[in-house]
Amino acid sequence: MEIVGELINASRKKIRDDIREKNREVIASVAKEQHEHGASFIDVNAGIFVGKEADYLTWLVSTVQDALDAPCCIDSPDPKAVEAAMKVHKGTPMLNSISLEKDRYEAMLPLIRGTDVKIIALCMSDEGMPYTKKDRLKIADNLINGLIKNNIKMENIYVDPLVHPIGSGNHLGKEFLDSIRSLHEQYEGIHTICGLSNISYGIPKRKFANQLFMAMAITCGLNAAILNPLDKRMMANIIAAETLIGKDDYCMNYVQAYRDGLFDLNQ
Amino acid sequence: MEIVGELINASRKKIRDDIREKNREVIASVAKEQHEHGASFIDVNAGIFVGKEADYLTWLVSTVQDALDAPCCIDSPDPKAVEAAMKVHKGTPMLNSISLEKDRYEAMLPLIRGTDVKIIALCMSDEGMPYTKKDRLKIADNLINGLIKNNIKMENIYVDPLVHPIGSGNHLGKEFLDSIRSLHEQYEGIHTICGLSNISYGIPKRKFANQLFMAMAITCGLNAAILNPLDKRMMANIIAAETLIGKDDYCMNYVQAYRDGLFDLNQ
Repeated sequence: MEIVGELINASRKKIRDDIREKNREVIASVAKEQHEHGASFIDVNAGIFVGKEADYLTWLVSTVQDALDAPCCIDSPDPKAVEAAMKVHKGTPMLNSISLEKDRYEAMLPLIRGTDVKIIALCMSDEGMPYTKKDRLKIADNLINGLIKNNIKMENIYVDPLVHPIGSGNHLGKEFLDSIRSLHEQYEGIHTICGLSNISYGIPKRKFANQLFMAMAITCGLNAAILNPLDKRMMANIIAAETLIGKDDYCMNYVQAYRDGLFDLNQ
Repeated sequence: MEIVGELINASRKKIRDDIREKNREVIASVAKEQHEHGASFIDVNAGIFVGKEADYLTWLVSTVQDALDAPCCIDSPDPKAVEAAMKVHKGTPMLNSISLEKDRYEAMLPLIRGTDVKIIALCMSDEGMPYTKKDRLKIADNLINGLIKNNIKMENIYVDPLVHPIGSGNHLGKEFLDSIRSLHEQYEGIHTICGLSNISYGIPKRKFANQLFMAMAITCGLNAAILNPLDKRMMANIIAAETLIGKDDYCMNYVQAYRDGLFDLNQ
C-alpha cells in the first residue's frame, strides 16, 4: 500500500497560516511525522492562495524535501503552479491530478508526457462526476488509453474512482468498491488510489466508518490512498487487511507492526 | 446478516460443567444474552459427551427454547443426536452440519430431505479439506445440487467454505474470500456462513484480525456467521460493513446502532 500523507494542505486552517507565514519548522515537522508514520509521498497543496499558488507550492516542495528524502505529491489543478513545483522537485514526484475534463487534460498532459511521474487520474469528465461503476470505467478507460499513448507507464497511473457519501445512496459504496475491483481486473499493473473520507459524510462516527471502509477497499484491490498517517487505527487496519488479503509474506509486516505497538489501539 | 450465537458449546470448559450439571439458569441466560445482542439462532453443542450426546442435546434445545422464542442451531455430526434434538425443537431449526463426506452425507440427508430446515453445508469431502477456491467450489457444487435434488430450497442452504489460518499461507485468506464471492455469483439466493476465528490462529491480536476479516468477508457477500455476539466491535463492524456495502436503506441500522451506543467502542 502506497500512502500519500494529506496533512500539508492549505485548506486546513492551521496549516494555511503556517504556509502564509512560510513557517519552515512546522511544515518540515508535519512532513517528517507523516513520513515516519508510513507516508511514502507527502501531499503539498496551496490551492487557496489565488495568484500566489506557484510561489507557495514551490516553497512547500523545497521545504519538505530539505527536511526529508521523500517525493512530494504535487496537488494542484493549475498547470503553471504544477510546472513550477516540478522544476524544484528532486526525484520523481506524484501529481494530483489529471482528469478527463478537456481543459485540465490538455493543460496537464504536456507536463507529464513521456516522464516517469506518477499521475493521479480522477474519474471525472466535462459531463461531471460518475456515480456508477459503468460510468467510472468508461472515463477511466479513456484516461488510461490516453496516458499510455503518451508514453506513461501503466504502473505510474493511479486511478481515483472518487467516493460518494453512503448517506446519499445505499449503492454508492458498492459501486465504488466494484469499480476498484474491475480496474485491477481489466488493467494489469494499474494503481488505484482514493481519499475515502467522503464515504462517511453526513453519518456519525466518521473515523470508525472510514477505517472500516479502507479494509473493504483493500479487499477489492485498492493499493494506494491519500490519508492522515497519524490515524493509528486506519494504519493498523491497512497493515492487517493487506496481511489477510495475501500481501504480507509469512505475516512479517503484521508481526512487526504488533511488536512496534501499532496494534495497541484505543482509537 | 444472520448471526448464530456460538457460546453454548460443550468444548468450552465453563459451559461443559453447566451442561453436565444441567444448570438451566446458566444455559437460559447465555442463550438470552446472545439473542439480545443480535443472535437469530442459538448454537447448541454437546459433542464431547460421548454416548450421552442425544440426551444432553435435547435438554439444551428444550432449555434454550423454554427461555426464549428463537430457533436453535443443532450442532452435531451424529445423526441420532440430531434426530432426537429435532424432535423436541419447536419451529424450524438450523443444522450444523452436512458435508460431502459419504457417511455424514448419507446419514444427514434423510433427516432434512424435503424439509424447511436450514442446513450448514461444509466444504469438506472424503478427500479432506479444500484450500483453493476451485476445490471449494467443486465440493460446494456437489453439495448444493444434491440438496436441491432432495427438495431443499436454495435459500436454506448455508455453505461454509471453511477458513484456514493466514499464518499457514499468504493466499489462504484470499482463496476463502474469493470462494464467498463466487458462491454468491453462481448460486442466486444461497447463504454463505462461517466461523472465521480460525483465520487468526497463530498470529497476535486475534480479535482485532477477526473483526477486520469479518468486514472483508461481508465485502465479498458473506451473509451469515457463527460467532460470539457479545464481541462488541465484531457486531459494530458487521453493522457498519453492511451499511457500507449497500444493505442498509438510508443508513437506518447504522444510525440506530449509533444511538444505541453500539459504536462506543473500547475493544
